Amino acid sequence: MASTIKDVAKEAGVSIATVSMVINNKADHITMKTKKKVFDAIAKLDYKPNLTARSLVSAKSFTVGLLVPDITNPFFAELAKAFEKELSKEGYMTLLCSSFEESEREKQYLSELISRGVDGVVICSLTSMETQILDALKQAKIPYLILDNRYSLEQFSVHVDDYKGGVLAASELLANGHRTTAFIGSKTPYVNIANRLQGFQNEIERAGGAVLTFKTDLTRSGGETISEELFSSEATAVFCSNDLIAVGLYDAANKRSLALPDELSVIGFDDISFSDIVKPRLTTIKQPVQLLAEKAVQHLLLMKKDPDYHFYKELIPVSLVKRESVTKPAHV
Amino acid sequence: MASTIKDVAKEAGVSIATVSMVINNKADHITMKTKKKVFDAIAKLDYKPNLTARSLVSAKSFTVGLLVPDITNPFFAELAKAFEKELSKEGYMTLLCSSFEESEREKQYLSELISRGVDGVVICSLTSMETQILDALKQAKIPYLILDNRYSLEQFSVHVDDYKGGVLAASELLANGHRTTAFIGSKTPYVNIANRLQGFQNEIERAGGAVLTFKTDLTRSGGETISEELFSSEATAVFCSNDLIAVGLYDAANKRSLALPDELSVIGFDDISFSDIVKPRLTTIKQPVQLLAEKAVQHLLLMKKDPDYHFYKELIPVSLVKRESVTKPAHV
Repeated sequence: MASTIKDVAKEAGVSIATVSMVINNKADHITMKTKKKVFDAIAKLDYKPNLTARSLVSAKSFTVGLLVPDITNPFFAELAKAFEKELSKEGYMTLLCSSFEESEREKQYLSELISRGVDGVVICSLTSMETQILDALKQAKIPYLILDNRYSLEQFSVHVDDYKGGVLAASELLANGHRTTAFIGSKTPYVNIANRLQGFQNEIERAGGAVLTFKTDLTRSGGETISEELFSSEATAVFCSNDLIAVGLYDAANKRSLALPDELSVIGFDDISFSDIVKPRLTTIKQPVQLLAEKAVQHLLLMKKDPDYHFYKELIPVSLVKRESVTKPAHV
Repeated sequence: MASTIKDVAKEAGVSIATVSMVINNKADHITMKTKKKVFDAIAKLDYKPNLTARSLVSAKSFTVGLLVPDITNPFFAELAKAFEKELSKEGYMTLLCSSFEESEREKQYLSELISRGVDGVVICSLTSMETQILDALKQAKIPYLILDNRYSLEQFSVHVDDYKGGVLAASELLANGHRTTAFIGSKTPYVNIANRLQGFQNEIERAGGAVLTFKTDLTRSGGETISEELFSSEATAVFCSNDLIAVGLYDAANKRSLALPDELSVIGFDDISFSDIVKPRLTTIKQPVQLLAEKAVQHLLLMKKDPDYHFYKELIPVSLVKRESVTKPAHV
């Protein structure tokens, strides 16, 4: 069997990217010692890069961009960890791009990734409604997919079943006897958040209940900001569009000595690693982060390999994680 | 005044890296539209890249590697966020490299960063005691600095005053009447953790107290693992070498209905964003993450600009954040 670039890399004790750079004369920064190792391995294994393979190889930067809103949201930290781990198995490195939900930053980062000729981009943050930047990615023939918030914009998307998540949250609250409920969404109109609300609202209203809706930032301080309005409403239970908002409500409840869950039941979304250390331990809808990352990487690499590869969307299931933050309403 | 590459970038509405790639004929992946914008801006501003400037520019990849043990530790997520933000102001992108504290992975990542000719590396994770990899960075003339755990190995280091952190933790426990205390360190012998212990131990022993020492992984599950041994010791208070270990102790205390802080006082290290949401809110030693990131970026860019730039170390102060996890010992 003919030897491959992988065999050469293994024999030389270097990465595939290094071998690629050496055989494509892009090895300015590589030491002579390393180059010699690669040439020795090529000679020993009688490796013959064919022209097609070479052109494929040389078109690779072995780099993928990951655009996230905020790496300090544990959900995105966990996603980035899993994503980087999956990619590194294939010899790719991850460029971390945090947008802080600023459209300008997102656009700048995406332009920058295009000019660097990255091998792919996973977009977990897209505040802007303008799709020119996606067109620019297409034009540059850079595979990309949308993960999470704006998946309606694209056929290439990997995301969880947000609608089902809303239904599960509603069922849990209904089973505990809640009828007047609240939903905390985001100020920026995201599709995933809208679907969580839709599932929640349909299920609550089907049972004759009501949903009061609130909007805030998708952060811990966003939860704290909206708390006053929420606490003075009629709602006996609240479904938060992410766990960080729920933590912000806990902060506010602590300051006002509002007893959770007795005076207000709370359900989150994400199941970040800290959701089981807050008191009361947070009941939430779990997103399987590892699976999301694996699927994103799989599709991206297939898209890179075959420009005609196409998928509509990859829908990942969610589940309810029952802990201690939901109980019966005080006045029932 | 002659116009600069920055002016061109601003005029063209693209990044400095893009301008650099266009003028250095490394713009294979850049669209004609973008190239035209750059050429138009160059013409308009009558920009003349001189040879020295060009060679300086062309030696840049506008990429910096950040090697961390685990991005899901909120301390490193906060550090990565601040680091990336500082670097992006200067037109650099961040390659995220998570080692998971595996020596092999660290070495692979560092070799990979060398072969990519990055403009700098910040190492926050170095499990291996071998320094060949640092020599390889030197040989490749890639500026790097050590942040956090192994700073004794290098003159180029940015780190907090770990010894002082230990002293502050000890003083707080002594002031509350504790005499038999515990310290939870790491299995891997890190210099920063050793210094935290040294400061703590010196201060406790100076007051006639004792320190029992324990070792575990620097993770939440590491805290839970060591809890049984710790809880059955004589210690009335414990100083954890990071906040995650403290959270792991909280997990274990919850499971066994051990009342914190009445039955055991706890102090952490880092002041991660979640340390004030656990119950009791965690008293801890704060590392100023933003300042650490700023200083690391400053030094790295100076090193890149001037190969003779040298600094011994940058020592960042720490402070005690008093919350609710320290009280008087039960039997005093």
